[in-house]
Amino acid sequence: MNNRHITIPSGFKAAAVACGIKKSGKHDLAIIAADTDASAAIVTTSNQIFGAPIAWDRQILPKGYGKIRGMVINAGNSNVCTGKQGFCDAKAMAARTAKHLGSKPEKVLVASTGVIGRAMPMANVTAGIDSAAPGLNTKSDHRVVEAISTTDTRYKSAVVQIRLGGKNVTVAGIVKGSGMIAPSLATMIGVITTDAAVAPALLYKLLRQAVRTSFNAVTVDSDQSTSDIVAIFASGCAGAKEVKDGTAECKKFFAAVQEVCDALAFSIAADGEGATRVIEISVTGAHNDKEAQMAAKSVADSPLVKTAVHGADPNWGRIAMALGKSAAKVKAEKLIIKIGGTKIFAKGTGCKCDLKKISEMMKQNVVKIDCELGQGKGKFTALTCDLSREYISINADYTT
Amino acid sequence: MNNRHITIPSGFKAAAVACGIKKSGKHDLAIIAADTDASAAIVTTSNQIFGAPIAWDRQILPKGYGKIRGMVINAGNSNVCTGKQGFCDAKAMAARTAKHLGSKPEKVLVASTGVIGRAMPMANVTAGIDSAAPGLNTKSDHRVVEAISTTDTRYKSAVVQIRLGGKNVTVAGIVKGSGMIAPSLATMIGVITTDAAVAPALLYKLLRQAVRTSFNAVTVDSDQSTSDIVAIFASGCAGAKEVKDGTAECKKFFAAVQEVCDALAFSIAADGEGATRVIEISVTGAHNDKEAQMAAKSVADSPLVKTAVHGADPNWGRIAMALGKSAAKVKAEKLIIKIGGTKIFAKGTGCKCDLKKISEMMKQNVVKIDCELGQGKGKFTALTCDLSREYISINADYTT
Repeated sequence: MNNRHITIPSGFKAAAVACGIKKSGKHDLAIIAADTDASAAIVTTSNQIFGAPIAWDRQILPKGYGKIRGMVINAGNSNVCTGKQGFCDAKAMAARTAKHLGSKPEKVLVASTGVIGRAMPMANVTAGIDSAAPGLNTKSDHRVVEAISTTDTRYKSAVVQIRLGGKNVTVAGIVKGSGMIAPSLATMIGVITTDAAVAPALLYKLLRQAVRTSFNAVTVDSDQSTSDIVAIFASGCAGAKEVKDGTAECKKFFAAVQEVCDALAFSIAADGEGATRVIEISVTGAHNDKEAQMAAKSVADSPLVKTAVHGADPNWGRIAMALGKSAAKVKAEKLIIKIGGTKIFAKGTGCKCDLKKISEMMKQNVVKIDCELGQGKGKFTALTCDLSREYISINADYTT
Repeated sequence: MNNRHITIPSGFKAAAVACGIKKSGKHDLAIIAADTDASAAIVTTSNQIFGAPIAWDRQILPKGYGKIRGMVINAGNSNVCTGKQGFCDAKAMAARTAKHLGSKPEKVLVASTGVIGRAMPMANVTAGIDSAAPGLNTKSDHRVVEAISTTDTRYKSAVVQIRLGGKNVTVAGIVKGSGMIAPSLATMIGVITTDAAVAPALLYKLLRQAVRTSFNAVTVDSDQSTSDIVAIFASGCAGAKEVKDGTAECKKFFAAVQEVCDALAFSIAADGEGATRVIEISVTGAHNDKEAQMAAKSVADSPLVKTAVHGADPNWGRIAMALGKSAAKVKAEKLIIKIGGTKIFAKGTGCKCDLKKISEMMKQNVVKIDCELGQGKGKFTALTCDLSREYISINADYTT
């Protein structure tokens, strides 16, 4: 596959350049463009403090979906808490990109990640757009991912191909996340492209649904970014008939989108700051799905659980504690906890089991924790990573 | 003062012994006894997974207050997740202590802290009660605090004396908290004694009020114990007239209780696992007090804020992020953030200020963060500590 990803679906081009926003000299600006206006949908952060690019994107897509020509993304400066100038800069980025694409500012999404509270270096950004645009091509590679990444230690992409109405359809995605450049925030930016034909409103519905159990199921440190955005574009260039809601084709297409989102979300957890392993927390038997989500997230966000996993310590007490403090209904007597598939807590107390063996299992790359609440049929799976000294180093040792 | 504390108020005796619950051989069982039945009130954990002693205490004080003769506390085993036997053991501890005090089991509170999920070593506990009870005396010292502590690195007590109706009245307290013995949970146990005369129901009301802005304002790692309890006893032995609700005396007495709770709560934050400094987060101008509390706790629980303070990094972006993700209403344009009294964020962006100077201030023992939300008159102050590598070491390096 030669590292290709978001330009595998036909109808898209991409380009990346290094224009000096990152001090490291690495690639820091990318343009993703559709050949003609594509169906598009976005899901953005729920943090009340959000960046100027988020404000711009919400202005041009007030319902969260519509027709979009392209997206410009930079890393190194998040354009958050930059006042009115910040909004003008985001808009100017869209306008400059639109000019090159022969489109309008209102057809270009903007995403920025990196240091916050500092004015965008617009001279660099403008020059970057001008030099990237002529290079738009269908050979997207790791440099495009590099350009949207900050301190990510891995480049994250995923590609799924399906047959849809007799045609080959591709869904591809890239994401950056959970690394950060101090004094900034961990941010998540995801871009998904597909050559399926899907109306904007349906695309939005499917994206929201896929995000719920993928990106929204990941927590690295319970902190929530001011810049998070996931965007999906559908070009329709595969030649397959339009995907209609409620059909078998829609189900198949959704499964592909979900698979790409799941793979990208997993890669974020695996690349969590200081992470040495991924923790997958499945809650079943909750009163309803919402309570399952609250319970799973409470375990995923617990520093005591995360440090225990880091130490490969099968400490079910901390898991029970984290479930008990959540807003989900939990009763010790009905609760069953498994680590790595082995029952370790049931009937209100610890089970007889080989703790050393469980501890050995916990040294693997993925640790599975299953919690059956015995209250109903609600279920949710959350992803997180362990909490290590390295997390502290990454986040404390920078001094302004 | 010779380290005396909870027996300074007249009408109380205490004793501590080492009976082998802690492997270290340190003191691990304490009895606190009133000479006659005292007014008493308790506030217990809101975690749905709670220990057998909590279940016992709630059974004998279903309203949270009543008349109580004494309390038996042990450290080294928390009697949490121990099934039906655990409850029998807690009750047996109360019964054994009551026998020595010439009282009934239903007049004795029980609190346990330490390892969870293991049966109480009742032979040791019973022998401990038998050997402690005859030694009850009015010279309580650090050994009583040691007996209720686990890995606390400091012994925490506070004493306040006031004049009430022409008499000297004392309010004294001890607390353990934020240390833990793996594979257990951070737990908080507080005992406050006073020789003021206060009816149980009023005592309960005042305790709840004092706890709200003291113990409930402390967060070390957002995890919530299964064993938390704060108990207050009023003997009436000072000879002052009974404190009545709504009087000037009540106000004065409440202030003393609040002062003791505040001092103890501060000492918990200062002794937070791996803490090198205390962080005091004051939120003002929230829509209401509840929103102020949510906003302050969101900042206090944020690993990114806590690591930034550990690194003495004046990273206002993370503070703004933590406020923005809370359920409290926040708008960047109305928000003002100060660190150590210096305005660092206002009008939606960073202020011009000497970041190096602020960083120097952040190396002190107490770092103050003030957040004015500009939404109303709600206010709340939360206490926490920084997040250091040592926290990870304490919580990850134990292996079962």
